[in-house]
Order: sequence, then C-alpha cells, then structure tokens
Amino acid sequence: MIFGATGDLANRKLYPSLYKLFEKGNLSDKFAVIGVARRPLTNEEFQENIKKSVKSSIQKEDRIDEFASHFYYHSHDVTDSNSYAVLNNLANQLDSNYDLQGNRIFYLAMAPEFFGTIALHLKEDGLTNVSGFKRLVIEKPFGHDLQSAQELNDQIRTAFSEDEVYRIDHYLGKEMVQNIEVIRFANAIFEPLWNNRYISNIQVTSSEVLGVEERGRYYEKSGALRDMVQNHMLQMVALLAMEPPIKLTTEEIRSEKVRVLRALRPIEGEEIKEYFVRGQYDKGTVEGTQVLGYREEQMVNPESNTETYVAGKLMIDNFRWAGVPIYIRTGKRMDAKSTKIVIQFKDIPMNLYYSPEETLNPNLLVIHIQPEEGITLHLNAKKAGQNIAATPVKLNYANRGIDGLNTPEAYEKLLFDCMRGDATNFTHWDEVALSWSFVDKISDVWENQKAENYPNYNAGTMGPREADELLEKDGFHWWPISNFDVDKC
Amino acid sequence: MIFGATGDLANRKLYPSLYKLFEKGNLSDKFAVIGVARRPLTNEEFQENIKKSVKSSIQKEDRIDEFASHFYYHSHDVTDSNSYAVLNNLANQLDSNYDLQGNRIFYLAMAPEFFGTIALHLKEDGLTNVSGFKRLVIEKPFGHDLQSAQELNDQIRTAFSEDEVYRIDHYLGKEMVQNIEVIRFANAIFEPLWNNRYISNIQVTSSEVLGVEERGRYYEKSGALRDMVQNHMLQMVALLAMEPPIKLTTEEIRSEKVRVLRALRPIEGEEIKEYFVRGQYDKGTVEGTQVLGYREEQMVNPESNTETYVAGKLMIDNFRWAGVPIYIRTGKRMDAKSTKIVIQFKDIPMNLYYSPEETLNPNLLVIHIQPEEGITLHLNAKKAGQNIAATPVKLNYANRGIDGLNTPEAYEKLLFDCMRGDATNFTHWDEVALSWSFVDKISDVWENQKAENYPNYNAGTMGPREADELLEKDGFHWWPISNFDVDKC
Repeated sequence: MIFGATGDLANRKLYPSLYKLFEKGNLSDKFAVIGVARRPLTNEEFQENIKKSVKSSIQKEDRIDEFASHFYYHSHDVTDSNSYAVLNNLANQLDSNYDLQGNRIFYLAMAPEFFGTIALHLKEDGLTNVSGFKRLVIEKPFGHDLQSAQELNDQIRTAFSEDEVYRIDHYLGKEMVQNIEVIRFANAIFEPLWNNRYISNIQVTSSEVLGVEERGRYYEKSGALRDMVQNHMLQMVALLAMEPPIKLTTEEIRSEKVRVLRALRPIEGEEIKEYFVRGQYDKGTVEGTQVLGYREEQMVNPESNTETYVAGKLMIDNFRWAGVPIYIRTGKRMDAKSTKIVIQFKDIPMNLYYSPEETLNPNLLVIHIQPEEGITLHLNAKKAGQNIAATPVKLNYANRGIDGLNTPEAYEKLLFDCMRGDATNFTHWDEVALSWSFVDKISDVWENQKAENYPNYNAGTMGPREADELLEKDGFHWWPISNFDVDKC
Repeated sequence: MIFGATGDLANRKLYPSLYKLFEKGNLSDKFAVIGVARRPLTNEEFQENIKKSVKSSIQKEDRIDEFASHFYYHSHDVTDSNSYAVLNNLANQLDSNYDLQGNRIFYLAMAPEFFGTIALHLKEDGLTNVSGFKRLVIEKPFGHDLQSAQELNDQIRTAFSEDEVYRIDHYLGKEMVQNIEVIRFANAIFEPLWNNRYISNIQVTSSEVLGVEERGRYYEKSGALRDMVQNHMLQMVALLAMEPPIKLTTEEIRSEKVRVLRALRPIEGEEIKEYFVRGQYDKGTVEGTQVLGYREEQMVNPESNTETYVAGKLMIDNFRWAGVPIYIRTGKRMDAKSTKIVIQFKDIPMNLYYSPEETLNPNLLVIHIQPEEGITLHLNAKKAGQNIAATPVKLNYANRGIDGLNTPEAYEKLLFDCMRGDATNFTHWDEVALSWSFVDKISDVWENQKAENYPNYNAGTMGPREADELLEKDGFHWWPISNFDVDKC
C-alpha cells in the first residue's frame, strides 16, 4: 500500500523503481500495489497514471501492461475507520488473489502530518493484523525536532516494532554513499590512514542549484539545518567516521553509526557561532538566468529568518577523530548541484620538495556522490621535464555502473532492501533521536535570534563569506567541488 | 668529445638529445662537439650524419644547420698518443673559438674494452688538463664482474675523481623511474604504508620482446643477470626501498641507495636455486611471427649456457623491509615490452567482504615505467547494483608529459644533468661495487653449472614455469603486466 499514491514522489520515484525491479525479476508476479490517496480514481485511471509515470521516467515499456495490472486504487480518508476497513478488505482479497502469504508493506509517501494518525489507524482497524510480515516505510521528515519525532515514533511503535520500521533517507540508497563503507573496509591501504594521525580534515558538500521552488510553505518551517543536516549530512558523516563493524549486519553497522553520533560534540549557546554559519540566498544568476532571492519566493515571508544554507564544523570526540574537523555545507541556489566528500590528508612530516615559491599540495581522496559517481585520489608526482619538482596529479575512477540504464537508483535499491527485510540502509530510531538532539540545540537558537545579515549570499555562489572564514580560522579552505573530470585522468 | 661518434648509441640517442637541448635553449651557443671514432670522415661528412640522425629520430630541423655547425670530427687511434695530441689541439682551439671556459666532457659511447685505455691516455696526453671542469660519461657495462669493474675504476680514477665520473644507467633517466622518489616522498599517504607492516611484496618486471639481435657476441659473455639485473633492476629496487634521504642532494640520495644495497641479503651456493631462476628462450611466436631460439641466433653457441631471462627474489634485511620479498624478472623474447613496478599491499586484517566463492583482491600500486608512463592504484569498491559485494576498480593517472613531443627522453635528461654537474641520476662507484658483489655470487655458480633444461621458455611467453613457482611457494603470483588501459579509468 502506497499512501500518497497520486503524489510527486510516488510518480517520479516509486512506480519507475517498482517497474525496474519487476523487469529485472527482483519483484515476482506475486505482488499487488494498492494506491491510497484522497481523490477518487478508478483502478483503470490509476493504472493509466502508473504507465504514464513509468514511461516518462525511464522510457521503458516492454512489460508495462502486465506490470500495471497489479495496481489497484483506494480513495481514502485518513481519519475515517470505515475507509480503513474497506482498504483492509481489498488488501485481504488481493492477498489471496496474488498469493501474498500475508506479507504487507505500508509506504507513507505523503505529508508528514498524517504519519501518526495513519499508523494508529493501521493497527486499530486491523490492517497490521497479518499472517506474514508487516513493514512500514516512512519518508522524511521524521519529526520537526526531537520532541515531535519522539511523539511520532511513539505512535508508530504502537503498530510496528522498531525492526518493522524503515525510515527512508534516500542518500543511503545512493551507490556512492553505500560505497563509503566498501572503500573504507575493503582496502588495506585506507584503514591504517583513516584517523587523526593522517587525516587533517574532512569536507562534505551537498549543494543544489534549485531554489525553494513550490515548497516555500514547508521550507519556511524547516530550513537547511532540519531539511538536510539532521538526516543526509549526518548520515554521511556517520558512515565516514564509524569504527569498522564486527560484521556487516544491519545491527552492527547501525550500532557503529550510533556510536559516532553519540561522540559528536554538542554545539550550543554561544559556541554556535564558532561552529556554524547560516545563510539565506539573495537574487542572483544561476546557469545564466536571473533568479529571485529567497524572500521573494512564493509562500515565503518577506522578512524570513529561515536558513537556506548551512555550513558547520563537527568534532567527533573519540580516539580516532579527536582534533579532526569535519566540515559540512549544504544549501540551495548554489553554484553547482553536487554531493562530494573530500578527505584531506595531513602534510608529510618533512617536505623534501618544498621551496618557498610553491608548497606541496596535500593528498586528497574525493568521493563523488552525485551527479558524477567515482573516486579521485589527488597525489603528487614528478613534473615532467628536467626538474625534480612535484606537481599535483589525479588518479580517477568513474563508476559507470553495471551499464548506464540498469544502474539501480536509490529508490529501487531501498524498495528492494525493504522487501527483503534488510534495514541496513534505513535509519534506526536511535540515529534519528541523536541527530535531532544535535540539531535542536542549534535551531532553537537560530529560531530565536533573527539573522541580522540575511540575505547573505547571492544565488549562484558557494554560500556566504562566513563559510569560508569558518575553515580559514583553522588554516584550511574548502576544496572546489568542480566536476569530476574524466578527461584529465 | 664523444668517443664512438659513428656508433649506434651516438646516432640514435646522443645527437637527437643534444639537438633537443639546443632547441630548448638548455644548450647555449657556446658549445662544440668533437666526434671521435676510428674511420676517416671530414667535418662536413660528420655534420651530414648528425643532421640525418636528428631528422630521422625526432622529425625536427628548425635549427639543424646551426646545430650541426658546432660538430667537428677527429679520426682516432685509441692507443696512439699522437692521435690524442691532435685531438687535444683541436679541443683547445674550439675551447677558445667557442669560449668554452676550459670545460670539457668526455663521453665514452663505445665498446667497453677501451674505457680504461682511453681514460689513461686522456690524462697522460694532457686532455684532462683543463682550466674549467672535466667530466667523464661512461656507458654500461661498467666491468664484467666486481674484479674487472674495480680494475676499470682504478684506471678511470687516475684521470678523474669520483665526482667527475658520470656512470650512465639510462633507466635512471626515465621519467617514471625518477618519479619513484617523488611518489614516495611527496605523498603523505604512501610513506606510512611503505614498509613491511603494509606491503606484502614488490614485483619489478622489465621485459623485452626483442631477442639478442646482432648482439650475440657480446650477450654470450654477459647474459641477463649482468646485462639487466646488476644495473637497471637493482637501481629500481634501491629507489623503491631506500629510506627518505635527509635532503634531495646527490650525496644523500646515493648514500641511501648504497644503504639498500648493503642490506641486500647475499645469495650464494645452494641457496641460489631457492632465490633465482634462469631461462633461455626457445623458438616461438612473437607478435605473430615465428622467431628463432637463442641457440640458433647469430654468434651464439648452439649449446650456449647463457641466460636470456632471470627471475629472482631479493630480501632486504633491514627494519623497514624484513620479510618482504622483492621479486624481479627480466628477459628477452617475452610476451610484451614493458617495465612495471607492482607494489602489493597486505590484506586487510579482517575481511568483512569475504565470501568463500570470492576473495578480495589486494590493493596494488602500479608504477608504469615504459612504454606507458603512469600510476594505477587498484582498489576495491562496491559492485554497482544491489549487493554490497566488493569489486576491484582501478584509479589511473597517465603521465602525458609537458606535451607529447617535448617530454625529454632519458638521454636528454642525463646529458643535461651532466652538463649542470648533477650526478644524482648516475651510479656511484659504491653502488656499482655492491651490485657486482651481489651478482657475482650467482653468476659464478651459473657459469660453472650447465643449465640442464635450456632452452626452457618459448619466445613470446613470460618466461619459464620455474619463475611462477618462485612466487607460488611464497603464496604469491606475478601480477599481469597487461597494458595500462586509459580507457578503463
């Protein structure tokens, strides 16, 4: 059952992903999908929507009619028990028609305000009373702060146990985010270097060129800190910083990630301005086009205090990371759409190649998350020619996937994981709670202190000047997130 | 003065290299070259040869007439003092004509049997009596064993001090051989890994597809051990294994290389068959053509005991390298022309990604010396798709030089070094003595024990089966030296 079946997420991501799973044989014939949403639709109309969605997303249709025939529609009132009863009847009937063995996945792809209500009704109205497995997939945002997240979690947990809840963080479905673990733990040369003896700092950037678009109403209440840092950014940091797990099981991996979040130095009160920078975009030029400032966008308060940009310095106070700043930055209307991780290694103990005119470039390991996927290692080599001078060179690996079209996208992977019962790439409640607890201390202050300098960066730039100063005062600078240049390899 | 001015080396390497130096302005107008050889030639005929040599080698001729006008010819008898007197007169005259400030370089590009005689005459007949610097450049082979090398050195040293002697090992002029040092000492991530805690073994391959060609007479007395291992292979090993020098000066670098050779475990007597494998090529197919076996080649004994292939296991018994085998192999008529260094790192302490069907590939750092130049790092990354399985990936850097044509070749660099008085990339007497001393213990035994199994590898293969077994008994295998594949990066 997909709640929010007529919505954007369902149409853009879920149906195409399900189709790919179906086409590859990862989804057998024994499945049925009930689309649940408010508006009235017939099964036929719904199936037409499905076909349209698949075709426009992935230009594939070999088995589209067969695929769409598995889809049913239920026009729903989320607060009405009768509506749940009708839904349950349909589900039970499909269970027997398709031989589903009582297995049921509930996907909440809709506005978060109803998550709790739906979860409670699912239990009360008997939909979770199944003979097979029951799983709840839930989209972000998972609450708005620790307290609301806790309330939501309590409601959900009346109907589902923790290991039945699949909290989506679609960054965890990305190929190169999943690669962080493999790069770290399957390469003998990195593990000995992966600590404060050899790493000087880590930089995680997730930049967007888009502005707030039609999401002004939601975004005004959220902002970059809650929308990006609490989930995606902290998840990437946890994967980068975690200790090697004992085994590659869901429990072991999530428990190591939790330990990172527990070691995260809390930043509060007066310290916040030492560690965090907030920004809000002004008008500017993005990809050659003049665009509005945030305060001029639809549904946005003309004196909005909401941040569209965050840069922060995280410290993980444990033996491995003591003294190594992890800088994060994320924002809208930036110069380029890019998610990248740069691991900067410390300088060599003694630079034989140093000359006053030119310092040696530090070694960097760059993990390209999106849009390019790959790994670049920045080394120094001998400059061609007579001199023995060192010059920076790049070793590149571009992840080209199995083949262009067949590389599974994040949602395809996450849906498949959920069907197989693998919760590794979903966030555990402990992770959610710890990251809200970290973020709340900052957002509480920001909400109550009006930013004096908003708007403080132009659309089409890499953010406010203060974000550069954040690194400069530690003697570092942001490494450019220029595109991964395969030609130069 | 180039002794052997009509020879192959002078024509193929020295004149084109001198022209490139001239064209780039690294050789000023204030130079003159006296070509010295037995046959009678006029200056004009010699200059025509120079032009032909430059044009055929590098397809350049912008300033060819001007360049060739600096060349003079002296028909010489190497044992006749009168001939040296005439040569000296010409040299003194050119010294004044070209304002050479009494600086004089003697380049012995000829058969080694006359090296000693010439050196003695140069002194006795006053040619080394100059007001500027005097330098002797001497080609390999530097002796035939330690004793003959010592005798030759004694003769040379009556006329030149150690720091005036430039013993050519043209491998030391290669861009990527010079890069070994920079890769090691200019990259913070490699130095901590560059020892027996993290490196499992090192493999140095220098393979040729050519056979012995017209050099049968020389090669019968030499063999692969003396021709390749004593000089090029041990030089590469010294650069790979040396401790970081205090400074990048000639003395410091050569002294660290000497320390490696001193730590080289001597292999003698019965141990030799545990550590070394010799081979001789049989007929076979090379690049689609049937070729003769070594014993059928011109000037080769039909029952020759000379090895055309050597594989060996070197142990450097010091703190850094204890327990890390350095495997070398070199031979003629092999599968591909290639010089490559593979550094194989130890496996990770615990393989989280291991499954009985597939073991994890070890990390490799490959330094491509020739014909391709570059660096490849073999890592493991996540296999694209659903699984968390690791798959080997390659990060490549191709050294494309300053630009294709202008990348200096080994001889150009070495000639320029010599003119500037930089002996870093030439071999010191101590290095020569130590490597002969290592090699003599093996060649003495091989000379006196007829190889029972010759010929033991077919032309066009990677050598005898025993070379594979050499590694297999340690649990390793030769990594393929397949071409550096830029497309895959």
